[in-house]
Amino acid sequence: MQIIFDDIDAAEIDRRIALYGPLTQAVRELVDATIRTEADEDTIRDVEATIRVATARLREKQIEGSFGARYTADGTVMSWGNAAVGVRNPIAPPMVVERDDTGLHWAEITLGAAYEGPPGLVHGGVTALLLDQILGHAAAVDGKPSFTGTLTLRYRRPTPLGKVRAEARVDRVEGVKTFVVGSLSTADGLTVEADGVFIQPAWVRDRAE
Amino acid sequence: MQIIFDDIDAAEIDRRIALYGPLTQAVRELVDATIRTEADEDTIRDVEATIRVATARLREKQIEGSFGARYTADGTVMSWGNAAVGVRNPIAPPMVVERDDTGLHWAEITLGAAYEGPPGLVHGGVTALLLDQILGHAAAVDGKPSFTGTLTLRYRRPTPLGKVRAEARVDRVEGVKTFVVGSLSTADGLTVEADGVFIQPAWVRDRAE
Repeated sequence: MQIIFDDIDAAEIDRRIALYGPLTQAVRELVDATIRTEADEDTIRDVEATIRVATARLREKQIEGSFGARYTADGTVMSWGNAAVGVRNPIAPPMVVERDDTGLHWAEITLGAAYEGPPGLVHGGVTALLLDQILGHAAAVDGKPSFTGTLTLRYRRPTPLGKVRAEARVDRVEGVKTFVVGSLSTADGLTVEADGVFIQPAWVRDRAE
Repeated sequence: MQIIFDDIDAAEIDRRIALYGPLTQAVRELVDATIRTEADEDTIRDVEATIRVATARLREKQIEGSFGARYTADGTVMSWGNAAVGVRNPIAPPMVVERDDTGLHWAEITLGAAYEGPPGLVHGGVTALLLDQILGHAAAVDGKPSFTGTLTLRYRRPTPLGKVRAEARVDRVEGVKTFVVGSLSTADGLTVEADGVFIQPAWVRDRAE
């Protein structure tokens, strides 16, 4: 498990986001174009060669293994490699989770061609990814991380590609278990309901004692 | 809903896979490098500019909207844009689903940095994506597509990044509902159990009558 303490200040975090964010966004656009292109063979082979060279340049110096979790000295968590929220992960839309005073967690995300399952619709597993993530945020009461124990998804209607809103809030806490409910919706209403049981890992419980 | 009948033969399908497959794989490698790079600022900005140009070249001629579902005249389904199995989707690992004589569906997938949730572990939502997909394959009895009705995931142990195996099989069929069970495991044993209820859409039922 790769947990790194990176003693950097807010200005350095901003500098890194300004550097890596646009690169990651450019790769997200490339992912979309890769799915949708109808360019001729020569162009495709040429672009492929260009991308292989670009990748090799990025790999000249790189992290061993996955991004892992990085914390600053003041406790800021940088989940930049995360598949749902990672600002350095081109697979992540990325989801930006907000929280209001009532404990409601929400995020609005626009999902394009890369997130398709059935034609024109968001992949059921992608809705699961978004809901698992936001339910996990809601479950992290007092900033303590929790792991998903059980996740149940009820698909009420198909979710068309485009703008979606994910929501979650804690229903109740029983010992180490936090029960969270959430949903996905579009402008036309609710499409997926979710509930999850999240469990605080022993190392978090131990740390708190 | 974009359903396209593309009257191409097996040789043309092979030609397209040989053209688009390596491009998509090159973008998958780039996604991994984008997360992991520690290259200097000048290199990162330069690679970003290169990628923007490459994307513009691919976009000179492209599909309107998402990839959609494409069928050949002989009924072959090309789910090439699918977020889990799409050979043209860099977000997809891609999963290749096999089936044995007993009705067991399985796939072996290697998950790298792009699929991370907690440090060193597969994102719970990514395991949901893989399980939703393979349970859906198992549910598609006689090749008839089904939509996910309910999906329940029980996380038994964390799933480390690396090689995983997904499995699914039909438990029982009751009218329009197909009950499917599945699991995710690593060399060290089972990590996630799943069960799903899949429902045949009305247009499939109507077509069968």
